[in-house]
Amino acid sequence: MRIYGDSISGNCLKVKWVADHLGREYQWIETDILQGESRTAAFLAMNPAGQVPAVILDDGRPLAQSNAIIIHLAEGSDLIPADAYDRARMLEWMFWEQYSHEPYVAVARFHVRYGGKAVADLEPRLVERGEGALQRLEDGLAASSFLVGEALTLADVALVAYTRVAHEGGFDLARYPRVQAWVKRVEGALKIA
Amino acid sequence: MRIYGDSISGNCLKVKWVADHLGREYQWIETDILQGESRTAAFLAMNPAGQVPAVILDDGRPLAQSNAIIIHLAEGSDLIPADAYDRARMLEWMFWEQYSHEPYVAVARFHVRYGGKAVADLEPRLVERGEGALQRLEDGLAASSFLVGEALTLADVALVAYTRVAHEGGFDLARYPRVQAWVKRVEGALKIA
Repeated sequence: MRIYGDSISGNCLKVKWVADHLGREYQWIETDILQGESRTAAFLAMNPAGQVPAVILDDGRPLAQSNAIIIHLAEGSDLIPADAYDRARMLEWMFWEQYSHEPYVAVARFHVRYGGKAVADLEPRLVERGEGALQRLEDGLAASSFLVGEALTLADVALVAYTRVAHEGGFDLARYPRVQAWVKRVEGALKIA
Repeated sequence: MRIYGDSISGNCLKVKWVADHLGREYQWIETDILQGESRTAAFLAMNPAGQVPAVILDDGRPLAQSNAIIIHLAEGSDLIPADAYDRARMLEWMFWEQYSHEPYVAVARFHVRYGGKAVADLEPRLVERGEGALQRLEDGLAASSFLVGEALTLADVALVAYTRVAHEGGFDLARYPRVQAWVKRVEGALKIA
C-alpha cells in the first residue's frame, strides 16, 4: 500500500497509526499540502477531491477519506467492535468527528500553527465550537475508558488525531481532565506517545 | 424504533427513506429544530450533541448521526455492497458528504429557504464550495449509474438528500446533467419522487 499523506495532518496520521498498529506494510509518500502537492494533476487523478490522505491499495485501486480508509484497513480486526450496536456507536463518533470536531479543533490549530494567526484573532465561532466539541468528548468519557466501552476502537483513533494537538490551536486541555487522561491512554495503546 | 427528526432536514429524511426502503417499522417524532426542540434537556439526554436525527432503537438504546444510523439499519441489506472495496468507496462518499458537501449545499439552502437570505447575499466561499461539491458528484457519475457501481447504495441516499433540494439554495442543477439524471434515478429507487 502507498499512503499519500502530510505529516502535519492528523487525518493522515490516523492512517499511519492504524497501518502500524495492524502491522501492515506501506510506503509513506510525503505530500506537502502547503505547497499544493494535493492539487497537482497527478494527485487529482488519484483523488479528485484533492485531499490527503489518499491511499493506493496493494491491488492498485485508490481510496480516500481518512475514516473510510481506516475502516477498510481495520475490517476484521479488534479496532472495530464485533457487536453491531458498539460498531454503530463507533461510526457515530467518527461521523461526528468530521462534522463537529475537525472543522473547529483542527482548523483553529491550522490557522495558528501554519497560518501565523494569533489565538486571540481566531473567529469566536471557531473557538466556541471547538470548546463545545472538547466538552462533548469530556462528557462522552464519563462512563468508560475509551469512547466505545473499555477497548480501543477507530473512534479513539479518529478523535485523538486533532485532540492531542488541540493546544496548538489555543485550546486548554487542562479544562477537560478526562480527555487529557484519555489522550495519554490512546497514545499508549497506539504507541505514539 | 423511534426516529426524532425534522422533516425539513435532509439528514433526517435519509433515515426515513432507509427505514421505508427496508420495510422497518418506526414512529416518526417531528422535532422542530427552528423552535429549539433538539436542545431541550430531554432531547440532550438522548443525544448530547443536540442534533437531529437521533433514533431510539427497539431495545431502547439511542443512536445519532444520520450516516451512522443508516449504516446500522442497513447492515446485511443490499444497500451496503458485499464487496469490501465497494463498501469502502461507499464510506468514502459518505464521509465526504458530511465534510465537503453538506456544510455548503445544505447550509446555503438553510440560509435561503429558512433564514430569509437572498441567494446573492450568500458568502462567496459557501457558493464556490457548494458548486465544487456538485461538480465532484458530476465527475463521480461519469462511469456509472450510481455512485458506487450500478446499484443503489447508502452513498446515493446520503448524497441525494441535499442535492435534490440544492436549487433551494440557489444552485442550478441544470449545470450538472449527470447529477440531475442521477437524482431522478435515486428518487425512483427510493420511491420518493
